[in-house]
Amino acid sequence: MRRFGLCNTFTVVDGKRDTLAELLLEASKEMKKLEECELYIINSDDNNPDVLYVYEVWSSEEAHQASLSMDVSQTLIKKARPILAGVEKTGPFTPLGGKGISASSLES
Amino acid sequence: MRRFGLCNTFTVVDGKRDTLAELLLEASKEMKKLEECELYIINSDDNNPDVLYVYEVWSSEEAHQASLSMDVSQTLIKKARPILAGVEKTGPFTPLGGKGISASSLES
Repeated sequence: MRRFGLCNTFTVVDGKRDTLAELLLEASKEMKKLEECELYIINSDDNNPDVLYVYEVWSSEEAHQASLSMDVSQTLIKKARPILAGVEKTGPFTPLGGKGISASSLES
Repeated sequence: MRRFGLCNTFTVVDGKRDTLAELLLEASKEMKKLEECELYIINSDDNNPDVLYVYEVWSSEEAHQASLSMDVSQTLIKKARPILAGVEKTGPFTPLGGKGISASSLES
């Protein structure tokens, strides 16, 4: 099955980026336990103090969808909502390979 | 030292995406040998057949800059240039942590 990648751009209100980063890092502890989540990487933007990017790779779109109803995701959404000005999704992508991700059928 | 992340969006000419993907996957074999390159992930866009995204994380901005003058990068640039319509950089980012990346000082 084809892997599923996406990148969410989170924009915060009132300088709350570090609060959101803590919430996302906390959520990532649960993602670490899920075999179907390969990558879940939280990045700050060096040029915009109100933005975080989360780059995610899942074993399938279905696995990603299923994760959204998990307790950890529901808690994250509930806690993050008051400090979010917006969320923009880039993707979906299909990760083809490279360094730091498991090999795909395209790699020799 | 703070890590350095960026994402390059490559747009190809003449349906040459798979050719570019092969060039990037080939280059990633060299990146796998570099300790200072933590992630180098090639992704296709599910909604645009002319686009590839490369998400990279380096130990520092200097390490990334140094990599650009390596033979592997020069060869990649030379072979890719004729099939590229454009390159757009997003970032730089600072990776804060999560799954699939080494821990940062922000993670407990």
